[in-house]
Parts: sequence; structure tokens; C-alpha cells
Amino acid sequence: MAEMVKVAVDAMGGDNAPLEIVKGAVEAINEDKRVKVFLVGQEPVIKEELKKYTYDVSQLEIVHAEEVIETGEPPVMAIRRKKNSSIVKAMYMVKEGTCDAFVSAGSTGAVLVGGQVIVGRIKGVDRPPLAPVIPTLEGVSLLLDCGANVDAKPVQLVQFAKMGSIYMENVIGIPNPRVGLVNIGVEEEKGNALTKETYQLLKACDDINFIGNVEARDIPYGLADVLVCEAFAGNIVLKMYEGVSGAMMKKIKAGMMSTLRSKIGALLIKPALKKTLKGFSTDEYGGAPLLGLNGLVVKTHGSSKAIEVRHSILQCIAFKEQNINEKIREQMILDEERKKESENGI
Amino acid sequence: MAEMVKVAVDAMGGDNAPLEIVKGAVEAINEDKRVKVFLVGQEPVIKEELKKYTYDVSQLEIVHAEEVIETGEPPVMAIRRKKNSSIVKAMYMVKEGTCDAFVSAGSTGAVLVGGQVIVGRIKGVDRPPLAPVIPTLEGVSLLLDCGANVDAKPVQLVQFAKMGSIYMENVIGIPNPRVGLVNIGVEEEKGNALTKETYQLLKACDDINFIGNVEARDIPYGLADVLVCEAFAGNIVLKMYEGVSGAMMKKIKAGMMSTLRSKIGALLIKPALKKTLKGFSTDEYGGAPLLGLNGLVVKTHGSSKAIEVRHSILQCIAFKEQNINEKIREQMILDEERKKESENGI
Repeated sequence: MAEMVKVAVDAMGGDNAPLEIVKGAVEAINEDKRVKVFLVGQEPVIKEELKKYTYDVSQLEIVHAEEVIETGEPPVMAIRRKKNSSIVKAMYMVKEGTCDAFVSAGSTGAVLVGGQVIVGRIKGVDRPPLAPVIPTLEGVSLLLDCGANVDAKPVQLVQFAKMGSIYMENVIGIPNPRVGLVNIGVEEEKGNALTKETYQLLKACDDINFIGNVEARDIPYGLADVLVCEAFAGNIVLKMYEGVSGAMMKKIKAGMMSTLRSKIGALLIKPALKKTLKGFSTDEYGGAPLLGLNGLVVKTHGSSKAIEVRHSILQCIAFKEQNINEKIREQMILDEERKKESENGI
Repeated sequence: MAEMVKVAVDAMGGDNAPLEIVKGAVEAINEDKRVKVFLVGQEPVIKEELKKYTYDVSQLEIVHAEEVIETGEPPVMAIRRKKNSSIVKAMYMVKEGTCDAFVSAGSTGAVLVGGQVIVGRIKGVDRPPLAPVIPTLEGVSLLLDCGANVDAKPVQLVQFAKMGSIYMENVIGIPNPRVGLVNIGVEEEKGNALTKETYQLLKACDDINFIGNVEARDIPYGLADVLVCEAFAGNIVLKMYEGVSGAMMKKIKAGMMSTLRSKIGALLIKPALKKTLKGFSTDEYGGAPLLGLNGLVVKTHGSSKAIEVRHSILQCIAFKEQNINEKIREQMILDEERKKESENGI
């Protein structure tokens, strides 16, 4: 039997902790025997929550952590000072190999800082991007970077493209994923200084399937599998997704409730509509992996419910079984060798 | 009787020229006696189109322009070489005062370049932003800059905020409009180098009602009346609006057609839904003004139909009658005086 995938879960992070987190963790282990969850947080609180459920005790452990990092705290300071927090303790478990992965709905800043400072980057990775999966009409795309490190450099965007391609191919299962550069026009010469330079680097890159610029308008239609951009732009793309779809649903619901006729119609279309829209909601997917670390760190929405926590835990299986980090490591070594060769004029 | 508002209209620009452009122009003059339209383009073609309509001939003139600037042409070259194009001819009419405004659905690049090079900037305006009105759940917001000039400076964003406030207050009629800085977090210290510096300048600015950072997620909910950002970000916001709403509608329609039950429901809710969603479509508003020029230049969608052309022409009335450019000019003089005072240590 293959070794279990060990996932540390931040029982204290997010708006719905510990209730939804513990629920999602139990659901994950009940769904898949290959996972063992380590619930990290205040033991008495976690124990109380766990009373509600039945599960295979060999698949779950509690790791006590007294402190909690709040969402508003300055992340660098929090990671440095709160050594007994669930986030810091879980990060060390990944670093030391006790766990393969860490899932948290807590402070994004603390997760990003902790991932880099405690878990550490794979050698050669300049900047680990936060890479959420976003829904499209064709399926899903990976959008990276959506992290907190804005003002990235072109070479970093090329690394995002490579790591994103490895993830989409091996975790999501899309062969030869199409890489698009998020830009304000499709033509090669369009964009700002960053995208213009990045375009040329991506075009010259043999390791990926670069299809050119992708305009924001085309993102929801699924024109590319891997969407590369700097974090400021990525954040806007991601949050416009949430904002526009949320506002539209509100508007549509108001329209449906506006007349008696429409109310009856609404009752009739509800089941079909619900099913159709489900696949287009960002909540329906697991959290966003922070790629390029010596271990897997997954950040889920602060507002995550059990379903998202469960998905986030389960996606760690493919990540480990497909040896994603080993593949990223190999890519980085290859890049380093090529760099040396070109420096030596071979 | 007040002087008529004279609007040059690019009869040859856009995907639906000349048909929809001429139609929109005729609709505009038939709707409002205060407007006189100058249809600029190939006279025989325009004359042929005009045969379809009845209108007050004193409200319409044809100005012959033999050449057409295509959307794909490099804009700077096109403006320089095609002196007899509808865009260049119309721009000169605005520059020379024959017209107050110019409306075009043609090449965005050529309109932006022509506006700056031919019509010219108001003294003190560093960079004229393209400022579309976008729909929100509360009404509309002005998003600027969405132009082609990326990599703006903080002082330029402050000018956008001031010009945008003048526009929203006087053309759209929102007193003391709330100015938000498009950013990746609400806290003051969030963002990239540009937004951090801009935040401080906007905070220190007495002429506007700055309410702080606005996350992309909150834009569709109408949290701010004037949304300030650099053009790359603005373009993404605008095109995500179009993309997400378009993709969602496609998905919803598919859902409605998926079962017999839902098909019946769809028939019942259609009228109410159509009305509700109408206000949330970017097509329902006039084009985007290019603010800060010595005259008004309005760019409408390349795919504009008559309705958008009509709205774009009619919005020129408020722009002129409210003396928007005079107000921008006064603001720039005020800024210049303040700058001198502070340099002289007064």
C-alpha cells in the first residue's frame, strides 16, 4: 500500500473556523483512505468539534497550538512572534517532513510569508506564486500570480508559466496546457513594459505551450489553461470574477422576484440554473496552491465552508502522487544548466 | 435660444459603419433639437444611408472624407499619413472650433493619438484618460484610465481623480462624487509602488472626496463613483466586466434550455430578466470620453449599434452645457498656482 498523504490543516484559520474546517477535514478523510489529516490548533476546541462526527481515528491527529494569527495582523511580525500559532506550527511540520502539505483558510499574508520563510523555496524558484484555479466555460484555468508580491519581473513570470504548466498537466490532467499572458491586447507589441518583455521570453521558451496574449475579456471563455500575470493584475482578475458574478446573481434574483409571472418562472428554472451555475462559482474549487515551495501550501478562501476545505485537502493527493515538486525541481535544475551553458557560450 | 451643440461623428468607424452610425446620428437629432451632427466620411455612402430616414436637415451636415483608418493600422502612422480620413478631418473640426465634440467607434489607438496630437491637451493636463462609464448595482461609476497609455505616474492618477470628479458631478449629476483608488486591498499600505504613492497624494488632496482603496470585488456593487487606476488595470477591470457577464449569460441561457421544465420557466421570467439585466450591460451607456482635451472626444465600442452612438452624441450636450472643459481648465490653473506657492514657500 502506498504511503498516506499527510496534510496539516489550520483548524483556527478563516471566518468559519473551527466549525467548517473540522467538518471539511472529516469529510475528506471519510471520502479518501489515502489521506491523514493533522488538525493544528487549540486542542480542547478541536476535540469538542470532533465529537459531532464519526471517522477512522487512524486518519486524524490533533496537534495542539495555543496561539491564533488574526487576519489583520502584520504577517511578517506574526510569523516571527507567534511560534505557537497553528500556522507556524503547521509550516514547520511541512518543512520537517512530518506532513506533505498544509491547508489554511487563515491570514493570506501570514500563509504567504510563512511558506517562503519557514517551508522555503525550491532551489532556483525566485518567487512562489499563489495559483488559484478559476472556472471557465470550458472547464478551469490556473491563474498565477494572485499573491501579495506585486511588481514581479519578466523572468519570474516565465517561472510562473513553467510551474503552472506542470501543475495543470499533472494535477488537473490537461496535456500540453496552453499558456496565455494576461494583457490588454492580443498583438505581440501590446501592453506595458513588463508584458512586452515577458512576451518575448515566453515566446522563446521551449518548455511550455505559449499561445500569446490573452485579453481579460476572453479569460472566462477558457482560451488558455495557464494564465500568467503579475500579482496586482491577477488579483484584479480574480476579484472581478467574484464581484461581477456576485452582483449579476443579485440582479438576476431581483429580476426573478419582480413580478408574479417571473416568480413562477423562477421556481421552474431554479434546479437547472443551480446546476449550471455551480460549475461557474469560484467556491466550488479547492484552494490556491503556493507553487515552488519545499512542500505544498494551499490557501483557501477566508470564507471557506467545509466543501472547499475538503476539496483543498483532497487536491493534495494528486499533488503528492504526481510528484509536482520533484518536477518543478527538475525544471529549475534544467534552467540552471541551460543558463550556465549559454554563459559559457556552448 | 442657446447655441447648438455641434458634434462631428465618424461615419466610417466601427464594425457597423456606416449603417448603425448614421442611424444613431439621425436618432440623436430627432430626439434632441439642441444637437447638430456633422457626419464625416465618404459622402456618397453616407447620402445613400440617409435616404432611409426623415430628419430636420438644419440639424445635419455631411463632411466628405475620402480615406478610412482601419482598426489594425498603427495609430501614429495612420494619423500622420491619412490627412483625408474621417478621424483626422473630424479632429481638426474640433480643434478649430467648427465642432464642440467628436464621436467615433473607429480605431481606439487612432482616436487616442489624434485626440492628443490634433485636438491637443488642456494646459496642465499631463495625460488625457479614457473614461468609460460602467454599470453598477447602484447606478454607474466612471473608470479611468482605460486608455492605451500604460505605466502612469502617481501625479497623473491624481489628475484623473480630479477630472473624473468634475465629469461625474456635472455630466452624470452626482454631487461630491466618491473617489476610490482601485487596489488589491482596502488598507492604506496595500498595493504596488504606484498605488501606495498615489494613495498618499489622493489623501492629501482637498479638491476631491477620496474614500480610500476599492477592491475589484466591490466595483460592481458601486462603492465609489470615480474609480482611479492606471490603464493596464483599468483595461482588465473593463474587460473582465464584459467577459464575466457575457460568459455568465451564456451559461444561464444554457441552464434555461436544459430541461422542459426550465424552458417553460425561462419563457415566464424572460421579460423581467431582460429589463433587470439591461441596466447592467456596458452597451447601454454612451461611449467613453477622453478627458482633458481642448474639446470633447468620445470613443464608443467598435461594435456599437445605433443606441450607443445616439447616447454618445447626446452626452455631448451636458458636457458642453456644463462647461466641463472650462472647469478642468480652472482646476489645472489652481493646481499650477498652488504648486508655485509651495515652491516659493508661501
